[in-house]
Amino acid sequence: MSVRKLMIGVIGAGEASEQARQWAYEIGRLIAWRDAVLVCGGMGGVMEEACRGCIEAGGQTIGILPGDQADQGNPWVSLPVVTDLGHARNVIIAHTARALVAVEGEYGTLSEIAIALKLGRPVTALGGWRDIPGVMPAVTPRGAVSWIFDRLGRKDS
Amino acid sequence: MSVRKLMIGVIGAGEASEQARQWAYEIGRLIAWRDAVLVCGGMGGVMEEACRGCIEAGGQTIGILPGDQADQGNPWVSLPVVTDLGHARNVIIAHTARALVAVEGEYGTLSEIAIALKLGRPVTALGGWRDIPGVMPAVTPRGAVSWIFDRLGRKDS
Amino acid sequence: MSVRKLMIGVIGAGEASEQARQWAYEIGRLIAWRDAVLVCGGMGGVMEEACRGCIEAGGQTIGILPGDQADQGNPWVSLPVVTDLGHARNVIIAHTARALVAVEGEYGTLSEIAIALKLGRPVTALGGWRDIPGVMPAVTPRGAVSWIFDRLGRKDS
Amino acid sequence: MSVRKLMIGVIGAGEASEQARQWAYEIGRLIAWRDAVLVCGGMGGVMEEACRGCIEAGGQTIGILPGDQADQGNPWVSLPVVTDLGHARNVIIAHTARALVAVEGEYGTLSEIAIALKLGRPVTALGGWRDIPGVMPAVTPRGAVSWIFDRLGRKDS
Repeated sequence: MSVRKLMIGVIGAGEASEQARQWAYEIGRLIAWRDAVLVCGGMGGVMEEACRGCIEAGGQTIGILPGDQADQGNPWVSLPVVTDLGHARNVIIAHTARALVAVEGEYGTLSEIAIALKLGRPVTALGGWRDIPGVMPAVTPRGAVSWIFDRLGRKDS
Repeated sequence: MSVRKLMIGVIGAGEASEQARQWAYEIGRLIAWRDAVLVCGGMGGVMEEACRGCIEAGGQTIGILPGDQADQGNPWVSLPVVTDLGHARNVIIAHTARALVAVEGEYGTLSEIAIALKLGRPVTALGGWRDIPGVMPAVTPRGAVSWIFDRLGRKDS
Repeated sequence: MSVRKLMIGVIGAGEASEQARQWAYEIGRLIAWRDAVLVCGGMGGVMEEACRGCIEAGGQTIGILPGDQADQGNPWVSLPVVTDLGHARNVIIAHTARALVAVEGEYGTLSEIAIALKLGRPVTALGGWRDIPGVMPAVTPRGAVSWIFDRLGRKDS
Repeated sequence: MSVRKLMIGVIGAGEASEQARQWAYEIGRLIAWRDAVLVCGGMGGVMEEACRGCIEAGGQTIGILPGDQADQGNPWVSLPVVTDLGHARNVIIAHTARALVAVEGEYGTLSEIAIALKLGRPVTALGGWRDIPGVMPAVTPRGAVSWIFDRLGRKDS
């Protein structure tokens, strides 16, 4: 039996709409309930709300931080990975997550989607970059997370 | 007087159409003629033809290589920068180029466009990702390169 | 109360002596017992034995992997961070760990020690690079781990 | 006939002694006279003097910059490669240079020496880390550069 945890990525902007923050929080909870670990960029906005949802539901959160200080991560990152790589840390998120949910987001999020698709990772999006070819558009957090686990071969329970 | 060279990026897929290869070759020549240095990912397809055009017109080419061997670069890279960073090297291209021309391209190219736009770099595209918000669509190599130098404040001579 | 976990790094070669492997296993256990998370390069040798010790004592292990596949990590990595950055992932280990224990090791380990010292992290070494200025030489796993937690201001319990 | 340029690395601290700066300047000149391109971290101290020597002797200099702005490089960098990777850019220098000369230097320099030796690059040192196993100690800039070109199979002319 493997000790390996399943990693699911949540990506989106550090400045996010109220809608995006609610979606992100709910996605974080759903990831925790399925016993996966949430991976994100560890900063504010979508990342912070997703981490908060995950932690409050009893899960764990890895923040792949762009700066050189663990304290720069949001307070809901339990496992800060300090890269000091700036935007290049986006590529690590795409590699580390087995699948990704994008919540709105701007160009940084688009770069993560692009690398994730390049790597063949399942990617779904709520708002934002949902029209990029290869991205599965989603309408609700539950739909987004269900699709991802279905693609990874782990059914809803 | 500065010794600094102006760096212009050319991005696109390693497997490219005949059309894309012709465009890339012409773009490489135009960059050399304006005394700029061409920066690219250093591999095949669009990157190789752009480098060939630039070298044949008397210019210089920096290839930011994803692998760990200088020999993996195409034969028209005069200055191979060996990163062994995989796709993360795309971020270096976006940072290093003052402006970028995309020629067709797939998800790797999209990731470079996204980071370049995030950094505020002028980006123009021939084919491919020309509909991404913030990208200036171009129709000819000459139009693409003229637009870039105009944005950088260096007029056609 | 913070959700943040304390990260302790264990570094050393993928090919290790029997002595080094025993030391690493014991260090992994000590880290788990103090409720810290073990961070390492995630591969074989010292890294694998440290992870095994940590997991068998009920802890968690982050492997900052050099390649592009989570499966390349050793079986005792519970949280694989997939970087595809090659040796550059060493720098992430130095940034992420609040303090590091080196167990023997070769040039890769030396690069991690150098960056960690540059960042002001406490570094202790069993064998290997113990004579590098700034490194605290250790004689036993228990002494190494005690010194580290003392430097971080968390006393032995 | 290849368009590829030979890349030689010069590494050392941003704050350097007068002795180190003189050595670095002379090394830069010797690299230019042999028609190689100087690769360095692009910042001050040893890096700046090496670049100045190289440019004043008619050569070219690539600065692999740790920050996100080309302007952060010293004024003698003709080809700034902007990485925004912090200390991880040291690994790129070791990969890109076919051989390296270290001039004094501190922990950052040690990390570059370590990775270069790991990659099998010839490394020589004036002062500083000359006692690291695998490093060839040198006494003069001329001796250091001669040894490097001898190891690369290009004889003094």
